[in-house]
Amino acid sequence: MAPGRSRAPNAGLQVAAGPGIFRGMNLREMKIAVVGSGAVGCYYGGMLAHAGCDVRFLMRADLAAVRERGLTIHTQGRTVAVPRVTAYGTPAEIGPVDLVIIALKATANAALEELLPPLLGANTALLTLQNGLGNEEFLAARWGAERVMGALCFVCLNRTAPGVIEHFDAGSISIGEFRRPASARARAVAEAFAGAGVESRAVENLVTERWRKLLWNIPFNGLSIAAGATVDVVLADDGLRKLARDLIAESLDAARRLGHEIPDEFADWQIERSYSMGAYQPSSMLDWQAGRPVEIEAIFGEPWRQGAGAGAVLPRVEMLYQLLKKITA
Amino acid sequence: MAPGRSRAPNAGLQVAAGPGIFRGMNLREMKIAVVGSGAVGCYYGGMLAHAGCDVRFLMRADLAAVRERGLTIHTQGRTVAVPRVTAYGTPAEIGPVDLVIIALKATANAALEELLPPLLGANTALLTLQNGLGNEEFLAARWGAERVMGALCFVCLNRTAPGVIEHFDAGSISIGEFRRPASARARAVAEAFAGAGVESRAVENLVTERWRKLLWNIPFNGLSIAAGATVDVVLADDGLRKLARDLIAESLDAARRLGHEIPDEFADWQIERSYSMGAYQPSSMLDWQAGRPVEIEAIFGEPWRQGAGAGAVLPRVEMLYQLLKKITA
Repeated sequence: MAPGRSRAPNAGLQVAAGPGIFRGMNLREMKIAVVGSGAVGCYYGGMLAHAGCDVRFLMRADLAAVRERGLTIHTQGRTVAVPRVTAYGTPAEIGPVDLVIIALKATANAALEELLPPLLGANTALLTLQNGLGNEEFLAARWGAERVMGALCFVCLNRTAPGVIEHFDAGSISIGEFRRPASARARAVAEAFAGAGVESRAVENLVTERWRKLLWNIPFNGLSIAAGATVDVVLADDGLRKLARDLIAESLDAARRLGHEIPDEFADWQIERSYSMGAYQPSSMLDWQAGRPVEIEAIFGEPWRQGAGAGAVLPRVEMLYQLLKKITA
Repeated sequence: MAPGRSRAPNAGLQVAAGPGIFRGMNLREMKIAVVGSGAVGCYYGGMLAHAGCDVRFLMRADLAAVRERGLTIHTQGRTVAVPRVTAYGTPAEIGPVDLVIIALKATANAALEELLPPLLGANTALLTLQNGLGNEEFLAARWGAERVMGALCFVCLNRTAPGVIEHFDAGSISIGEFRRPASARARAVAEAFAGAGVESRAVENLVTERWRKLLWNIPFNGLSIAAGATVDVVLADDGLRKLARDLIAESLDAARRLGHEIPDEFADWQIERSYSMGAYQPSSMLDWQAGRPVEIEAIFGEPWRQGAGAGAVLPRVEMLYQLLKKITA
């Protein structure tokens, strides 16, 4: 970690102001728990573990397989093997840690009520890798806003067998504080990921970043289910491409009314950059096709409610939300 | 037929001003061809044939079965049998008639280019029983506006076997002229249906009636596919019920901008009257589930285009149209 960055002011957070891994630079001392060990949890936790961090995975279905064979990450031509993984079936076996990485689906948040408390010490930080809006608020309301950080993961992953992750593309992670500018803590976590070979950065306004990502997820995740259309199909169909643009325009208006500064060109860019994705299937489409819960509230419901509450007119986002809620029910 | 009504002015139509079945009252002299012998064509044509009208069915798949066994209509506890049916496999065998009843799906209109000409004499009238907007225009553009009448069928039918029709509910038919007030001709056809036991009426403004029906079809046919929701499910879900109301409000605005006088209360009534329908599956849902073409342009595309052309703002109708076009493609 660059010393200059590590000394940035951390907005007065208790956890970062006190002693501990978020000020000290020895990442090996940081005890990390990963809750939710699907593809995202195994990939990001596995990369940290491979770099030598003390990562403890909370697992259910894959526990025995991972204890026996560890984690294997196939990533763009090479294989990252983590043969010895510390994995547990209950949070009590893990006990208090310095950082909890939350990689459950947002649809399973209720389970955190029982899973998190055994992991919490006085200064334990929470980092949610979950999609959409509302997850930081969920954590903050229960365990204190000062603990909460969030991250946006730009990554294409697939869990192909217990403990085996295929990493197709990208992988960067943007880490920010809940309702605060980037802190030394957020930068330290970003550095930990960077040291583990994951492109990462700390962001000053986490919610603005979430809205920027939503400007893609709302149209493309939404239409992947509502129209059964992969990204290339949306872009090739005049009507659906216009609908995607209209959904982005509505979402952009909502984001701005909520105080997020996102330029007009960003809306066009979300369309233009998608042409290179080909027949990409957004995560919501994969979840739905596999019969898994889809994060309807985090990606569609909460943005619609927050935008409408700020005075935005969002007929298409609302309609998309109502259709998806019924389709995926 | 009431003589007083038969002498009503017929808006100067050539066909009705000249001699022929539309002025004379002997319905038995009227030669009628039915093109498109699915459930709708067999029901309405069969009822006329049962009453003694000269009805000639153009059939494809069911031709042999109907020639052998005739038509059977199970209608609310009783059976209407038409043991001897005049059915042909080509329009040339039928030849020119006085009235062609068109009961093809609107999605098959292109076939009319070959099917209709052999049936047309100088005064042959065309009556389309098809759904939505654009069908009268299609006929008028090819064979002359003066020939064209349209009808709205309020009926629940199912073809359960070749020549066998289940008639569940309702059955009334509203008949009007294309871009003209009800003529003596329209009244004569309505009387013919009434004489055959079909509740019928002539309407002064056919397109207004079409829009009134669309105010139900757009939300309920649309959401039956886009949300996979039967009528009761739409009404029981707060979000979908509001969406149905919003779709009706947009459609009502379009209808008014196009000059159709429909009161506000009609929008509420379209919701209220639907509660008694239970788990009704709109025809579009049945078509889609059976793998048949769905009348997307007539029910959604053309109303959206006409409404938008008149200055209406229809984000939800447009979105529904674009989604349905892709889903049913």
